[in-house]
Parts: sequence; C-alpha cells; structure tokens
Amino acid sequence: MRYLITFSYDGSKYSGYQKQLDVNTVQSELEKALTTLNNDTVSVSASGRTDAGVHALNQQAHFDLNINITVDKLKMALNSLLPKYIYVKKVEEVDPDFHARFNVKQKEYIYKINIGEYNPIEVDYIYQYNKELNIDKMKEAIKLFEGTHNFKSFASADDIRDNYERTIFKTNIDISNNIITISFVGNGFLRYMVRNMVGTLIEIGEGKVLDINKILDSQDRTKAGKTAPSQGLYLKEVSYN
Amino acid sequence: MRYLITFSYDGSKYSGYQKQLDVNTVQSELEKALTTLNNDTVSVSASGRTDAGVHALNQQAHFDLNINITVDKLKMALNSLLPKYIYVKKVEEVDPDFHARFNVKQKEYIYKINIGEYNPIEVDYIYQYNKELNIDKMKEAIKLFEGTHNFKSFASADDIRDNYERTIFKTNIDISNNIITISFVGNGFLRYMVRNMVGTLIEIGEGKVLDINKILDSQDRTKAGKTAPSQGLYLKEVSYN
Repeated sequence: MRYLITFSYDGSKYSGYQKQLDVNTVQSELEKALTTLNNDTVSVSASGRTDAGVHALNQQAHFDLNINITVDKLKMALNSLLPKYIYVKKVEEVDPDFHARFNVKQKEYIYKINIGEYNPIEVDYIYQYNKELNIDKMKEAIKLFEGTHNFKSFASADDIRDNYERTIFKTNIDISNNIITISFVGNGFLRYMVRNMVGTLIEIGEGKVLDINKILDSQDRTKAGKTAPSQGLYLKEVSYN
Repeated sequence: MRYLITFSYDGSKYSGYQKQLDVNTVQSELEKALTTLNNDTVSVSASGRTDAGVHALNQQAHFDLNINITVDKLKMALNSLLPKYIYVKKVEEVDPDFHARFNVKQKEYIYKINIGEYNPIEVDYIYQYNKELNIDKMKEAIKLFEGTHNFKSFASADDIRDNYERTIFKTNIDISNNIITISFVGNGFLRYMVRNMVGTLIEIGEGKVLDINKILDSQDRTKAGKTAPSQGLYLKEVSYN
C-alpha cells in the first residue's frame, strides 16, 4: 500500500531533508521510523529536498508499506517514533502510481525577515536583518518574478541542467511587528532560487538599483543578489494534481 | 565603574542561567565575554537565575569593570563576543551600590501554551499541550494568586527557607491563534513557583476541581498541580526602585 504523509519539521535541527552519510537528516529519521514499523526497509520520496536550516510547515512524501495499518494508527505510530522536531500532520492512502515529487502541481515557500531589533530567541527561525528596508520598492520588484521565466540567474551556480524555466503564479510581501514575510507560489523552484530571489529583493530594499527583468534575461548568477540565509525559509504548502 | 545590562537569551541552548562546572550557561558566557574585555576576571550578578530551558526577554544583571568604555561601545563589544543566542539590548552606568538582585522591585514572567495542533518548530518555545483547556475557569482561578500569600505550596519541594511570602500584583491570561499566554507580575518568585502555578491552572483548565485558596493555606506542595515544563516560560521584565 502507498501512503502520502504531510509533515512539518524544524530545519535548524537537521543537516537538510535529504539522507546523507553520518549526519542527521529528516529523511533518515523518517526512514528509520518507517523501517521499524514495516519490519523491512522503507524508502521515502518527498516533494523535493530542503537545505540545511530550512523549515517545513507542510512538506509531503510518499512510501510503500507491506504491513496492514490504518492511516490513523500509522500517524500515531510515526509520531511516537519520530524525534520531537518532526511531526506528521496527516496520513493518506494514495494510488500505487502516485509520486510525491513527479505529481507536484505547485509549491509555496515563505521567507521571514526581522527588520526590528535583533532577537536571539528567533535566530534559527527568522533572518535577523535588523535594519530598515524599503518595502514599497521590494513590493514593486517582486511582481516581476511572476510568470514563466528562465531562472538561471537565480539558481545555484553549480546547478547545471537543460531547463531553468519555471512559472511563478503568485507572490506577496506582508509586514507585521517588524517581521517581513515574503511568499512565492510556483510550479517548482530551482536549488537556492527562493533564497537568491529574496537576497536580490533585500538589496533592492536597501536602495540598490537592480532590474529584475534584466537579471532574468542575463541568465547570469553574478547579476543577482546574494543568497539569503537558510533560517528564514519555510516550505509552506505542496499541492498535487 | 558599575554597569547594568538588559539582555535576552534562548534558554533552550543553555543549562540554565547560573554558572555551573562543565556545562554551558548564560552567566558563564557573559563572564567569559566580559573577562576578555576587562583583561581581568568579571563576576556578573543577575536579577535572579532562570532554570534550564527558560528564556529571557529582558533579564538584567550588573558587574564592575576596570576599563574605561562608553555604554554604546560596551554594548557593541559584548554582542560581538557573545554567542548568537544571547543579546545585550541595553547597557547603563549605575551607582556602585546598585545591586541587580537586591534592588528588584518587581518581575514579570509569561508562560506560553499551544492548545492547537502540535508544532515541532516551536517545541522549545511554547509548551505543546495540544488539547483544549477551559480558559474561563483558568481566568477565574488565576485571580486568586493576586495579593500577598505564603507560596510554599507552589515552591520547589526541596526549597527550604524561612520566608515563602511573596506578593503578586497582577495576573493575566490571553489567547490568540490557539496560544495561551499567562502573565504574572510580582515582587519576587520562588524557584518553580511560576511553573507550579501554571501547572495548577492547566489542571483547572482540564476540569479538575482545585481551590487555589485552600492550596495556598495548606502550605503543602503535594496539594498543587504538576510543574509545567520549562520551555514555555519567559522572564519578561525586571523593574528596579
């Protein structure tokens, strides 16, 4: 039977989502718990990886189990085996050909920035920028990311691939109590793409004159802003067809 | 010259405020940074200790330095030497007879409880109770803590002292987005007193019939509720005469 789970985690406690040798990752914790339940090795396929320090509010992943277990019992069993920094919110049965990565329709990422006083209690959860930013300029600029573009200028420089085209359906910037929340909804995101878009928006908010359209056209990573730190980033939602 | 500092810290990263051998504490980090600046050993006296896992939004402490340094430079120097989970918000010069513990007029503690869904991202910052509570009963009960009482029933069982009398000036309970915030303002608090009052309020919110007046009168720790976990507790403010 194939299952789809929706789960959240504190990215500051893991070396990223994806399994790696000798370090603690979200995937390895999930596979360890599931293998215990299944009495046999379980491989987990997520909607995509998140980098070290990046949080997830509603990450999704699928896996197959040999055992017969209801979705409610599976949720309880998983949460009793998982560390306290990972939580399974929902378990669903899905078709055997469902794939948590290939079937993604859209994803939403949010990024949080504190422009008020430094707060040592939220340092792993909100980027401590701690200076003023021109929100109006950032709001104007972010709209230029919407639509279908070649995002090579905003991808990781060592991410070599044929297709850098992605579609951003919707963007938003809100501010409340000195915390800026930036949101991107798209059909997919290249590695570091959100953090590079945010880093560029921050430079625009600082007053630097950067033309998003020209940067997109250049297909040159060096034309965009710096990569914003991982701790402000959250995978918020994943939607399927 | 004697200085008073106001500082905040993430209690989940330390084995409490107070210096102890072989463990990482807030006081030892402050003394290490100050000793580096002063070229001579510095002892720091805080308004009081906080236990392991307890956070501070505006803790205060005094110390003496031999060197001549302005308050602005001292703030900058300290924050550049301290770990990212401790932050000095303010530095003031005070009289040589000022004492950060003996001169306390009042303190405010707050305690946060999540009665909504478990959230692995806030597990070190908000008590994950994750069940409903009867807030109206808790609001009624908390008022009985106000005034001057013998708080022996709410002190740590192994805290043997002559005087258990403390005055609580003000209490409050708020709820927003499934997070209950309980506040206590008083002239001083015994060890575990806030967590024991909160634990008792939680049992009242669960429907248990507990009479705060009778518990206070009994001077018997076993009559009060369980100690609420440390991670929901914040030292919010310290005021001086």
